[in-house]
Amino acid sequence: MPINQQSYAYGTQKSSIREIAAYAGERKAQIGAENVFDFSLGNPSVPAPDAVRASIEKSLALPPTQLHGYTPASGLPVARAAVAASLRRRFGEDAARAEDVYLTCGAAASLSISFHALLRAGDEVIVIAPYFPEYRVWIEAAGVTCVEVLADQKTFQIDVAAVERALTPRTRAIIVNSPNNPVGSVYASANLTALADVLRAAEKRLGIEVTLVSDEPYREITYGVEVPWVPALYGRTVVCYSYSKALSLPGERIGWVLVPPTSPEHDELVGAVAGAGRKLGFVCAPALFQRVLVDCVDVPSDVEAYAQNRRALTEGLTRLGYEFVEPDGAFYLWVKALEPNAQAFFERARALELLPVPSDSFGCPGWVRVGYCVSREIIVNSLPAWEKLAQSYR
Amino acid sequence: MPINQQSYAYGTQKSSIREIAAYAGERKAQIGAENVFDFSLGNPSVPAPDAVRASIEKSLALPPTQLHGYTPASGLPVARAAVAASLRRRFGEDAARAEDVYLTCGAAASLSISFHALLRAGDEVIVIAPYFPEYRVWIEAAGVTCVEVLADQKTFQIDVAAVERALTPRTRAIIVNSPNNPVGSVYASANLTALADVLRAAEKRLGIEVTLVSDEPYREITYGVEVPWVPALYGRTVVCYSYSKALSLPGERIGWVLVPPTSPEHDELVGAVAGAGRKLGFVCAPALFQRVLVDCVDVPSDVEAYAQNRRALTEGLTRLGYEFVEPDGAFYLWVKALEPNAQAFFERARALELLPVPSDSFGCPGWVRVGYCVSREIIVNSLPAWEKLAQSYR
Repeated sequence: MPINQQSYAYGTQKSSIREIAAYAGERKAQIGAENVFDFSLGNPSVPAPDAVRASIEKSLALPPTQLHGYTPASGLPVARAAVAASLRRRFGEDAARAEDVYLTCGAAASLSISFHALLRAGDEVIVIAPYFPEYRVWIEAAGVTCVEVLADQKTFQIDVAAVERALTPRTRAIIVNSPNNPVGSVYASANLTALADVLRAAEKRLGIEVTLVSDEPYREITYGVEVPWVPALYGRTVVCYSYSKALSLPGERIGWVLVPPTSPEHDELVGAVAGAGRKLGFVCAPALFQRVLVDCVDVPSDVEAYAQNRRALTEGLTRLGYEFVEPDGAFYLWVKALEPNAQAFFERARALELLPVPSDSFGCPGWVRVGYCVSREIIVNSLPAWEKLAQSYR
Repeated sequence: MPINQQSYAYGTQKSSIREIAAYAGERKAQIGAENVFDFSLGNPSVPAPDAVRASIEKSLALPPTQLHGYTPASGLPVARAAVAASLRRRFGEDAARAEDVYLTCGAAASLSISFHALLRAGDEVIVIAPYFPEYRVWIEAAGVTCVEVLADQKTFQIDVAAVERALTPRTRAIIVNSPNNPVGSVYASANLTALADVLRAAEKRLGIEVTLVSDEPYREITYGVEVPWVPALYGRTVVCYSYSKALSLPGERIGWVLVPPTSPEHDELVGAVAGAGRKLGFVCAPALFQRVLVDCVDVPSDVEAYAQNRRALTEGLTRLGYEFVEPDGAFYLWVKALEPNAQAFFERARALELLPVPSDSFGCPGWVRVGYCVSREIIVNSLPAWEKLAQSYR
């Protein structure tokens, strides 16, 4: 067959998350949406803030050739400046300059571009399991090996000793995803500092220069916990961001890659990021939504809606005796399956119309991810089914 | 240096087109925009039709979670159906079904995705020179060899005999770009049929299955010439399209890949296209502009504005004794340089504030590309400089 087999495999071996979401869609059509407790996707349930709509309406007054024309590949200068100014206000005067910011078509593009900018054939990238399964796809597409290192299974912080053991002369990058999908944990400063120390030691010991790729789409969605600014703890970092969750714009594909001033390969990496975007076929980030950033970069996320969902779900499941990781951020609850086989647990849940995602998809046995970016009713109405599920194991 | 050297090279060795455009920007700031005759870019000078704005305003009434949410990776079913229905109305009942259409972030994404879906390391792709220089970037990024075959230098149709000589057991695809950038030629049915015959013969002779990648962003911009529907002449075709030129939306990144029903590897290729989009980091095409397609897929392009520019430029240059290829479509004039060295000719032009693009950038010596997607005044006011340039060679 004259086609690319790797692409065919990625196109036909669907992700579990997408498969469960597709099943949920069919099931809702069969028995009514209110009877299916679909916790599968990370599609924000909170609407985009009104400021987004106001910004779009304002932009529509511009001459269309200016509004919809090509922007520079790295983005409109005014949008890059707005992002950088916001980062400086939040993380200090040295956090970012406009020229360090490269606007992208969302976090997936930010990560894919970062990997193609950094990595060479034969390199290894470490992911902290459980992890967002698309990481593996993008890493392997860059011709590189994805190495899984399990998080500390009690705290779900990075198991720094385990990362140290996994380092090899080929290790080139580590993905740090905090707040974490699927667990909801936020890596503490002390945890990241310990990781940084190990990497600095490895630089001498193994002669490797390891970059942290900090994937931060959930940075704004936290519950009373501060998310450390990674470049301040370890200079050799690239930050990947998206407005999919912060502004509830996942379909519009708008985000950025930051090569911070702390990066020892700053200028080379800025060049490589631009080249990676070019060679992958990203001409520029969508122009209209670049302008939305200028107006909305500091508009707060509606965290309270997710906080209420989190409370309803965690209180309900606690009452029923479930174990879970108390989430510091994001909108997922990582719930211990009631048997070692998460897939079998999922099948029992499915029979009760409960649709979480089994943890095997995230590179880790024995749990399920419950996405609470849904309506409050779905959470409340699902509790009797969670109760039946628990009873079935007694 | 721990970065990807290919990406660094693509990010720092800028395209000539972009370099000339950047120079034009600086020069305009120095001596006033009205004194610089910038013919470098293919940024449409015609505004997006009013229907685009009306469609966006209509969409803003939708619930934001629905409007800005993730769409399926291949696009909203309603948008794919609108594109397919339009193709059927124009090219016959068998032209396309909704499930054959995969929405993308513009033509660059369509091409990059098609190459990553089709090609395997070691393959060769033929481009007809002169050609859009980014083709080589995307082809090489897929790990594949770009083979240049010169177009017939009188007619600028495909030199089918030259293509036949260039076929090898590794030939896997040929890019067909009609209306053509940079020449403006439209390949005639007879020309494409002759190419199809050669490819069918090669299938038996060399055992190769060659796919035509038909890159058609300029399909709607023609001057009394019909653009053949390639899959009707050769089944093993993939069509790449964009609304950048048709609807003047280049910054918004919206287009599609079509695997037509005629494709002998249809189902496998549909899978590989989805997988290529996934692995490159394209999650979905921008959601708001997917909805714009539903409303605007059949809105006619304002060709008359470009036709008037074309007339002003060709009449003016004819009067001054320049030779050029009469363009059938697109918005570029391919003008013979007045000396064999196009770069030297460009330097003389630049001294007169005339900024076309020398043909070496397009893989062909001795010409310049004059983009007439500019204001009428720029064309008219540039004629004295073109006259001085011609005089300087007498």
